[in-house]
Amino acid sequence: MSEAFSTGDIVAASCRGHPVEGIYITDRDGMAVVKLGSGYNIGVDPATCTLVRKNGGTAVPAPPAVEQDESLPGFAIISTGGTIASKIDYRTGAVTSQFTADDILRAIPGLSSIGRYRAEVLATILSENMTPAIWQDLARAIHAAIRGGARGVIVTHGTDTMAYSASAVSYMLDTPVPVVFVGSQRSADRPSSDNIMNAMCAAAAAGSDLGEVAVAMHATTNDDYCALHRGTRVRKMHTSRRDAFQSHDMAPIGRVDFPSLQVRLADGAVRRGASALALRDRLEERCGLLAFYPGMAAEIVRAYEGYRGLVIAGTGLGHISTGCIGAVRDLIDAGTTVVMTSQCLHGRVCDRVYDTGRDLLAAGVVEGEDMLPEAALTKLMWVLGNESDPEEVRRLMATDLKGEIVRRSAHGL
Amino acid sequence: MSEAFSTGDIVAASCRGHPVEGIYITDRDGMAVVKLGSGYNIGVDPATCTLVRKNGGTAVPAPPAVEQDESLPGFAIISTGGTIASKIDYRTGAVTSQFTADDILRAIPGLSSIGRYRAEVLATILSENMTPAIWQDLARAIHAAIRGGARGVIVTHGTDTMAYSASAVSYMLDTPVPVVFVGSQRSADRPSSDNIMNAMCAAAAAGSDLGEVAVAMHATTNDDYCALHRGTRVRKMHTSRRDAFQSHDMAPIGRVDFPSLQVRLADGAVRRGASALALRDRLEERCGLLAFYPGMAAEIVRAYEGYRGLVIAGTGLGHISTGCIGAVRDLIDAGTTVVMTSQCLHGRVCDRVYDTGRDLLAAGVVEGEDMLPEAALTKLMWVLGNESDPEEVRRLMATDLKGEIVRRSAHGL
Repeated sequence: MSEAFSTGDIVAASCRGHPVEGIYITDRDGMAVVKLGSGYNIGVDPATCTLVRKNGGTAVPAPPAVEQDESLPGFAIISTGGTIASKIDYRTGAVTSQFTADDILRAIPGLSSIGRYRAEVLATILSENMTPAIWQDLARAIHAAIRGGARGVIVTHGTDTMAYSASAVSYMLDTPVPVVFVGSQRSADRPSSDNIMNAMCAAAAAGSDLGEVAVAMHATTNDDYCALHRGTRVRKMHTSRRDAFQSHDMAPIGRVDFPSLQVRLADGAVRRGASALALRDRLEERCGLLAFYPGMAAEIVRAYEGYRGLVIAGTGLGHISTGCIGAVRDLIDAGTTVVMTSQCLHGRVCDRVYDTGRDLLAAGVVEGEDMLPEAALTKLMWVLGNESDPEEVRRLMATDLKGEIVRRSAHGL
Repeated sequence: MSEAFSTGDIVAASCRGHPVEGIYITDRDGMAVVKLGSGYNIGVDPATCTLVRKNGGTAVPAPPAVEQDESLPGFAIISTGGTIASKIDYRTGAVTSQFTADDILRAIPGLSSIGRYRAEVLATILSENMTPAIWQDLARAIHAAIRGGARGVIVTHGTDTMAYSASAVSYMLDTPVPVVFVGSQRSADRPSSDNIMNAMCAAAAAGSDLGEVAVAMHATTNDDYCALHRGTRVRKMHTSRRDAFQSHDMAPIGRVDFPSLQVRLADGAVRRGASALALRDRLEERCGLLAFYPGMAAEIVRAYEGYRGLVIAGTGLGHISTGCIGAVRDLIDAGTTVVMTSQCLHGRVCDRVYDTGRDLLAAGVVEGEDMLPEAALTKLMWVLGNESDPEEVRRLMATDLKGEIVRRSAHGL
C-alpha cells in the first residue's frame, strides 16, 4: 500500500507486468506516481509497490538566479503550459506546470545571452485542453507584445496540439516579426530532454529575419539543429521522439543550428517586415473535424447538426461512403460549411475523379486542396468567424491565406 | 451545354478557373466528365464546355485473348473493385469498375507467365464503400480459395481503405499461404499507371515463401520495386502518389523487384506454412473511430452511445481534453470498450505520464500500445465479435495478435 511511502522513497513496482524501480512521488487518481531512472514519471498500481529503501534526502540543488542584459534585443515569451514550461519541484522531483516569469530563464541560462525577455503566463494547461477561446487570447497577447516593441515572440506550448494553435494564430495575426512556437517532448528532468536546445533555437529564430508564425523543434534525433516549420503546414508525427514535428509537402522554412544558433531561412520563408501588424481575432467555435472510417454510420455525421463548419478527413482523394453523403448534404442544406481534406495527410484532395467525390461536390462540399485537416479546421473557424456570405466562405477556403495551401492546379493532382 | 456533345468529342472547358481540354465522355451528377491528356477523367461544369472538334472515331483496339498455362502454380484473384480492377470502356474511353474474370489477365498479359488464376468478383465497389460485412465475405472467400488449393491469394482493392481491409482480414484469417492485397493509384488508361507493376509484384509475392496478409504497392516513384507491407502496420499516406503506402514503425516485410520479380522477405516476415488455415469471421460492427481535436464538445463523444467499441485517436501520448473525459467514462460505464491510439500515427501510447492520461486510465480506457488507429479499430471489431468478457477483451487488445503491436515495454516509450 502506497500510504506507507513518503516522497523520495525508492520503491519497486509492477507496470503492465514489467518490474520497475524508481522514486515514489505521490498518489494521484488511484495510482502511485513513480519517477523512473529514465526521468519519466509513470503511474503504477499502488498494490504492486514495495519499499526498496527510505528517502535518502538527496534534494536537487536550486539553480542560480539570472540577470537580463538590457543591451540585447527584447523578446516576449508567452507561456501556455506543456512540458517545456513545466518545472521540477526540487523537493519532490515531480514535474508540474506552475510557471513563473523567471522560471524558464533559470532553467535555461543560455537564453540570457541571446536577448532580454518579458515573460507572460497566458495559461498553464496541458495542450489537449487548449480551446479556440485560448487561441484568441494568445493571438491578442502576441499582438500586444509586438505592438509593445518585442523584436520577436516565443510561445511555449504543449506539443500535443501545438500545430493546431500555430495554425490558428497564423490566420488571426499578420505579423512583421517572428512568432515562434516551441515545446518539449521530454521534460527537463529527463537526461534526453529537448527543452534547452529547442528554447535556445526558438530564441534565435525570434531574433532572425523571419516574418511569420513558425514552430521550432528538433529536426533529428541528434542535438544538432532545429527545423522551423510553417505554422499551417506542420504536424506532430510521433508520440515521443524529439524530432516528432514534420513539415508536410514542403521543406521547413528554415533551420537553426545548435549550438552555433545560426539561423538559415528558406527562400520561401516570409521575411521580417513583409507584413504590417494586424489582428483579426474572431473565431467560430462551432466547427468540428470528422475522420471517416469504413462502415461509419450516417448518425455520426449527424452529430454535427447545428455546427457552422465541419472539416472531414476523408479517404484518399477525399471520399466518404455513399451511405454518409446524404447526411453531409443535409448538414450543408441546413447551413453548415463542409470542407473535405484527406486522412492521407500528404497530397491534394480532388473530388472530381470518382463517383463518391462528384456526389460530394454535388452536395456542396468544398474541396480542401492540400490543406492538413488541422490547418483546415482552424482556417474554417477563422473564415466563419469573419465572413457570413457562403460564396465568400467557399472562396476563402480555396484561397491560400497563410501558406496552408501549397499547390493549386486544376488537374495535375 | 453538354447535351450538344457526343462521347469522343474534343472539348475545351474550365476547371476551377483553369482552362482544360480533353475528350468528352458523358454527363454524370450534373457534371460533364472529360478525359484529360494525363489520363484523368475529371468532372467540369457543363456550362463552361465548348466544342473543339467532333469525335474522330479513333477507337482503342481491343486487346488479345489470353490462355492460362496449366503447369504453373494456381492462384486466386479476388476482386473487390477500385482503380486496379477498373477497365476502360474501349468505345468511350471511360473508366468503369465492371470486372469480369479474364479482364485483369487481358489487361496484364504478363501475369500469365507467373501462374494460372481463378478469378472471383466479390464486389465492384469504390473502397470508401467497404463495410465490415464485406470484410467478412472477403475473409470467407480467401479461406475457401486456400482450402481449394490456391498457392496464394491476390486481393485487388481500392487504395482508399485497403489498409483497413488488410488489417481486418489479418485478424479473421490464419493463413499458411500469402494473401496479398494490391491496388492501383492511377487507372490503367493513364500513362503513369501503376496497375501492371503492382499486379505483377503481387502475383510474385503470392507465389513466394510468405505466410501472412500483406499489401503490395510501389515503394518508390520509380517502377523499380514494390514493398510488401504487413496488413496491420500499413497506411496510405498520400492522396495520389504511387508510393503512397508506408509501413509504420517497422520496415516492410519484404520487397519484389521489378521487372525481375525476385522476392526478398525480411527476417521478421511470417513464412509459408507457419500457420494452419483457420477462419474466425465474426466482427462486431458497432465500433467507431474518433479523432480528437482541440475544443471538441463532449456531445461528439456521446454520438457513440450504444456502441460496443470505440477507438480514439488522441493527441500525443494518447490524450483528449479533460472536458471530454466524463463522456468517455459514461460510455465505458455503459459497456463500451474504449481504446486509445494516437493521431501522431508513429510511436506508442502511454497514458501514465500526464494527468489527462491518468484520468483516462482511471475511467477505464485501454491503452492501444503502438497500434495504428485503423488496425486498432478492425482489431476491436474482431475481439468484440469473438469475446464478451471485458477483462479478456482488454487483455486481447493489449496482446499482439497479428503483428499490429510492434513494441511493448513498460516505460521505455
